[in-house]
This record gives sequence, C-alpha cells and structure tokens, in this order.
Amino acid sequence: MRLYDYPVAPNCRRVRIFLAEKGISVPSQTIDLPRQEQLTPAYRSINPRCTVPALQLDDGTLITEVLAIWRYFEEAEPEPPLLGRDAQDKALVTMWERRMELDGFLPGMEAVRNFLRGLRSRALAGPRDYAQIPALVERGKLQLADFFFDLDEHLSRSPYVAGAEFTAADITGFVTLDFVAGRLKLPIPDDHIHLRRWSEDVASRPSFHV
Amino acid sequence: MRLYDYPVAPNCRRVRIFLAEKGISVPSQTIDLPRQEQLTPAYRSINPRCTVPALQLDDGTLITEVLAIWRYFEEAEPEPPLLGRDAQDKALVTMWERRMELDGFLPGMEAVRNFLRGLRSRALAGPRDYAQIPALVERGKLQLADFFFDLDEHLSRSPYVAGAEFTAADITGFVTLDFVAGRLKLPIPDDHIHLRRWSEDVASRPSFHV
Repeated sequence: MRLYDYPVAPNCRRVRIFLAEKGISVPSQTIDLPRQEQLTPAYRSINPRCTVPALQLDDGTLITEVLAIWRYFEEAEPEPPLLGRDAQDKALVTMWERRMELDGFLPGMEAVRNFLRGLRSRALAGPRDYAQIPALVERGKLQLADFFFDLDEHLSRSPYVAGAEFTAADITGFVTLDFVAGRLKLPIPDDHIHLRRWSEDVASRPSFHV
Repeated sequence: MRLYDYPVAPNCRRVRIFLAEKGISVPSQTIDLPRQEQLTPAYRSINPRCTVPALQLDDGTLITEVLAIWRYFEEAEPEPPLLGRDAQDKALVTMWERRMELDGFLPGMEAVRNFLRGLRSRALAGPRDYAQIPALVERGKLQLADFFFDLDEHLSRSPYVAGAEFTAADITGFVTLDFVAGRLKLPIPDDHIHLRRWSEDVASRPSFHV
C-alpha cells in the first residue's frame, strides 16, 4: 500500500489527520506539486487525474478523492469511528462534513486557486488547464466570512461540528480555517468566540501536528 | 418521517432514484422552488439552509444534503447496496460518485445557476443571495464537454460507472447528463458510443421514471 501525497496540501492534510486519529501508518511518496510533478508522464501513468492524495492498494487498485480514501480506512479499521456510529449518526456526520466542504473548503480553495499567480492557467486541479476567474476570489472570501459566522453560531450549541464527538467534519472544518483561510489571510474574527474555542481545542490534538 | 423536495430538481432526483432502487417509499412534501417557498419563514423554521431535499426523521432530526440522505437509507436498509459492498468496493463507489459530482454535476449546476435569468441574485443555493458570475457558464460548459469525453472513455472499459454493478455513481452521472446538461442543451456527442450505450441502459431502469 502506498499513499501519494504532498503533505502540506489541504486535501492531503485531510487524509493525514484522519490516519493519525486512527493510528494508522501508511508508506507514502511525496509528489512535488510546486514543481508540477503531478503532471509528469510518470505520475500520470499512476493517476491519470494528476491529483494527490491517491492511495494505491497492494493489488494495484488506485483510490483517489479524500472521501473515498477515508471510506476505505473507516471500513477496514472502524475504531475509532470518524464517519459516525449508527445510521442516523453516519448521516449527520456526512451532512456536517459536507457543509464544511460546500460552504467553506471548496469556496476557499476556489479563492486560493483563482488568486495565486503560479496557478494562472491551473484554476482547477486535474489533467487540463483552466484559466483563473478573478470574480471567484472575491466570492470565495464572502462565502468564507459567511461560513465563519454560521459555524460560530453552530458551535455555540455543539462541542464538535457533528455533535458530541470529534469526527471527519472537524477535520474538514479545521483545514478550511487553518490552511485555506490562512493562505487568504482571513483570521477568525475576535467576536467569534465559539469558533475560537473549537479551533483551539481541535488544534491541540496530536493528529493535527503530523 | 418526511422528505421535503421538489421532484424535478436535480438533487431531489438523486434521492428519489436512490429510494426507488431500494424500493423504499417515504411520505414527501413538495417545496415550490419556482415560487421560492424554500425562502419562506415556514420552511426556514424547518431547514434554515433553505435547501431541498431534506429528510425529517420521526424524532425531529433533520438530514440535509444528498450524500447524507443516501447514507441514512444505505445503513438503515442495506439491500440492494448502492454505495458498495466491502471496504475496497465502498471506496471505489465513493470515488466514482465523487468524480461524477466534481467533474460533471457541480460544474453543470454552476453553469445552470449562473445562466438562468430567474436566478440573477441566486447563483448559490442557500439562505443568502450571491450574484451570478457569467464566466462560470462558459467554464461549466467546457467542463461538461471534458466530463462527457472522460466518461465515454471510462465506460468503454466498464459496464457501469463504478464497475460491474449499478450504484449511486450511475445516479449522479445520469442526472448530470439528463437534467443538468439537458437544460444547457448539451446532448451526448454522436461519437461517444459508450456513453450512449450506458445512458440508454440506465434510462431504461424503472427507478429513473419515478
């Protein structure tokens, strides 16, 4: 088994934190994104989508996409559960993880990718070039401000994003705050005290320092 | 239990087809999207996110987001499985469903929402107004053309999107073709023979006519 990744990339962080929470160690190989190693023929022959993270199983099967890699390890090593316990709980974790992604992570990534000069023709991850759309930087920042506001309000009633326990929804939420909004220099507003409490709590977990 | 939906909306289609494949019947209430019923105080008090589909359980718990509603029914009624059987298979279904969404469904929905005159200030679903970004219409159409091309190539080697069996990945793929690309008047190109074969096969399932 081998994990192809670039450790500081936000989607790779989501997988590394998940694995650390489960206490799973996987041999990994760094794909140097700043040097566009993901677009080389060598990596294309492994993953034609040219993305990281990507997990290669021992029989050669390649699993891409964060949610799919999470699902693999959650089913193979259920404890501790990070995607929910029973039907209702699994649905609620899926819902909250999804909201972290749709409301925060994806608009934030869009703002970053449409902003960085080095990604002028690489506004979308994947094998093909797409031009940047500057309006998405501004919209992404607006969405992140709404995301902060909504999440602060939600966390006034809930210890973690999906309820009483730490789950994958906290991983996506925190990576959005730290690695995505951080790059855009969007700190948590001072008056978002619940978001600050949760953020400090989550940041103190050993899994967030791998 | 009650499902709030607007039957022809693409995300509601994804849930209805999934339920029909499992043979599950759920009482439903139509939320009239063209009349913006999702933004009324009455519906906001049920779902502050102002989206459909939304599933209310008997204890009052509200589950929004297609993937979360799917997860609930997959766990509560596992047969026939639509999200995979064992760990590897579940990961692969998650991966393929995700690709259908990221490469096809979401860019297609973006093109539609940034195009329709009636949605001028409603470019994003949810409680807040966001202005349209016309460049997303053009980009979405480009992405859909790439999506058709890639999916045709993939289906030359696979009966269904995630392998030998029909899964949720086929639902998202087909809804993208039929309800999203259809609205943009983007038919399947004649030379995409594998995509046509799969599309005709899937369209003939009774679940796609509910």
